[in-house]
Amino acid sequence: MSYNSIIITIGDELLIGQTIDTNSAFIAQQLNKSGIQVKRRIAIGDDRNAISDALNESIPNADIVFLTGGLGPTADDITKPLLSEYFGGKLTVNETVLAHVKQIFSRRNRPFLERNLRQAEVPENCQVLFNRLGTAPGMWFEQDNCIIISLPGVPFEMQTIVEEEVMPRLSERFKGYYIYHKTLMTVGIGESFIAEKILDIENALPADIHLAYLPTPGFVKLRLTSEGSDKAKMEHEVEIRAQLIQQRLGDYIAATEDISLEEIVANALKEHRLTLSLAESCTGGYVANKITNLAGSSAYFKGSIVSYANEVKEDLLSVKHETLMTAGAVSEATVKQMAEKGREVLKSDIALSISGILGPGGATDEKPVGLVWMAICNKNITVTKEFHFFYDRLRNKELASNAALDMIRMFIAEHYA
Amino acid sequence: MSYNSIIITIGDELLIGQTIDTNSAFIAQQLNKSGIQVKRRIAIGDDRNAISDALNESIPNADIVFLTGGLGPTADDITKPLLSEYFGGKLTVNETVLAHVKQIFSRRNRPFLERNLRQAEVPENCQVLFNRLGTAPGMWFEQDNCIIISLPGVPFEMQTIVEEEVMPRLSERFKGYYIYHKTLMTVGIGESFIAEKILDIENALPADIHLAYLPTPGFVKLRLTSEGSDKAKMEHEVEIRAQLIQQRLGDYIAATEDISLEEIVANALKEHRLTLSLAESCTGGYVANKITNLAGSSAYFKGSIVSYANEVKEDLLSVKHETLMTAGAVSEATVKQMAEKGREVLKSDIALSISGILGPGGATDEKPVGLVWMAICNKNITVTKEFHFFYDRLRNKELASNAALDMIRMFIAEHYA
Repeated sequence: MSYNSIIITIGDELLIGQTIDTNSAFIAQQLNKSGIQVKRRIAIGDDRNAISDALNESIPNADIVFLTGGLGPTADDITKPLLSEYFGGKLTVNETVLAHVKQIFSRRNRPFLERNLRQAEVPENCQVLFNRLGTAPGMWFEQDNCIIISLPGVPFEMQTIVEEEVMPRLSERFKGYYIYHKTLMTVGIGESFIAEKILDIENALPADIHLAYLPTPGFVKLRLTSEGSDKAKMEHEVEIRAQLIQQRLGDYIAATEDISLEEIVANALKEHRLTLSLAESCTGGYVANKITNLAGSSAYFKGSIVSYANEVKEDLLSVKHETLMTAGAVSEATVKQMAEKGREVLKSDIALSISGILGPGGATDEKPVGLVWMAICNKNITVTKEFHFFYDRLRNKELASNAALDMIRMFIAEHYA
Repeated sequence: MSYNSIIITIGDELLIGQTIDTNSAFIAQQLNKSGIQVKRRIAIGDDRNAISDALNESIPNADIVFLTGGLGPTADDITKPLLSEYFGGKLTVNETVLAHVKQIFSRRNRPFLERNLRQAEVPENCQVLFNRLGTAPGMWFEQDNCIIISLPGVPFEMQTIVEEEVMPRLSERFKGYYIYHKTLMTVGIGESFIAEKILDIENALPADIHLAYLPTPGFVKLRLTSEGSDKAKMEHEVEIRAQLIQQRLGDYIAATEDISLEEIVANALKEHRLTLSLAESCTGGYVANKITNLAGSSAYFKGSIVSYANEVKEDLLSVKHETLMTAGAVSEATVKQMAEKGREVLKSDIALSISGILGPGGATDEKPVGLVWMAICNKNITVTKEFHFFYDRLRNKELASNAALDMIRMFIAEHYA
């Protein structure tokens, strides 16, 4: 038997496009790990009727209903009084929550205001889900065979409550059903072409294994999904199909799990005990930022010279003034010098450089927006490559950073395998 | 009379948490500009019944229903055949779309496959919305006084169709009603304290002006919203209240429009004709990345030395070996040297440096995770500041980068006003 959930996110900011909802994705991932499906997500405004309507239609159709948002200390947060009424109880101050809220204010050296008392109020007929990192407690209600869980909208508070309070309780309650996802990351091949190459494998998939294509900037993810009560058999069946696809697509497969390109690069650097440095112009530190998002990156990443101005390219990376004047900052000659000198001054095994025109300005007759040159080198060899991206500034930056990471991945595969 | 819309996003990836939905936010912003409200967003899987159900319940309750996703060339994309059936028509190849799709394949030097023919099929009873940047056309249906618009899920394609094809048609159709948002950005003060300070202003707001608090990492946005048919009066009423709040909050107000901290810094740099450089350790290029996300940043941004390894701090930023050995890399003495030398070698008016421990590793008995030192200097003065962040690596990175941007903003306000 499968378990179904619905996620309701509350907040006017979600309906006017001022905030991007990342909470739902986090909750969905956690639920999937426990074999619970999300069948629908609903975003509504800070409006009593909208919240009641969403609860009325969701509770009869799900085993679990999540609500996030609308629990703050200010006047526009209306969820808690509404839930209290909806489930037929009164709001009362919870002493444990009150002590915790006061402690948080004291730790932050902020006076405890009268209005903050409201943060410690909870509906009397709920079970409190402790919010270790914030003042708004989570709440757990049960009605008509449905569990209703209300959580604050601040992402890291919500995440901690889900991990520490919600999932242990749900895993205890909902057992024996599993969802298994297997993701293959492909680079350098389009969605249609993958589909053609693996047509026979896809057509021969058993009915309970579903294949999905997820195109993202610079790569396509293939996701195989199965679900059921026989965990071992289900995983085995998915893995067999994943291996078939992997063999068929060969070098287009960059990873056999759902990880980022920077994680793939980090794994390759660690495996071969290599250090990396960067000399970034147009990407402005974005590649360095992605790499340093990973904990432990200091083991293999030395640093980046973000040489946005031409004089920085000359001063710190010894790019010849003549090269900048004749070939220009966006040229094979410039990125070659950037990478080679960058590797020398940052003392790494491998260095990659990037210079390009991301737009909207900066184009010339010979050099259009989207032209990007990259170079990668070790002590023996330097490889250069020219790219053309066709989109706006931020998408070009995303594509260039992914292309850079893939260039590192391929360089290591070719020269250190 | 106000106009209502509902946004339906389609894709299993949205329900398993593999993708974050950014499309809805974009569509909502565009609709708001034309006075059209979004009353609900629904995310569902690649499932015929789920799509039909969502359409059945949305069409009677909205003037406009948007669908995004499910229009690709592979087997898991089912929206187009379903829409064709739902609105009682057949799928037929559209010659204009076909020519466009073939041209795209030819430009990318990719063979046109049989399955790509399906990309050029559209339901015969829809109006085609031209997709200049991709192969999947948008579609416009009308039924029961409701406009139903189906768009591809790839963000930049969707965005271009909305801007170029959808909004001009909707603005023509839906006239005379306006939504006005005014956002004040506050820095350095919590949500509750703002609420206390402006209690009387908030209580005196007319019923048709709504105030919302949006806490984000490092700052709180206050949004005043009004809507109606008298555009000039409505804007005037909102602006009066915004000015009252602005006067009350004084220096806590960082901007009077919904812009990012990096845009605020960019505006200040441009206003005072100053150039900036960075020396980033723990933020790993994130501050430089944010600044270079802005078009035209080369006018005021020189570059960043991302000195992730200690030897890079010594080699490129002349941090004394002794300082690193005694005070350590995360110390006032280190960031002072980093900022001052960084300013010198990157030849800027102002330089900011950052060194800290973002976690999860790297803490010592004296230096906990979350300790970050920053320094900012011009040719006359250097200011240092110690920060403590209490969260996980990525949130600490976000908070540190925002604190850095705010430190630049305040330094300019203090020394160049």
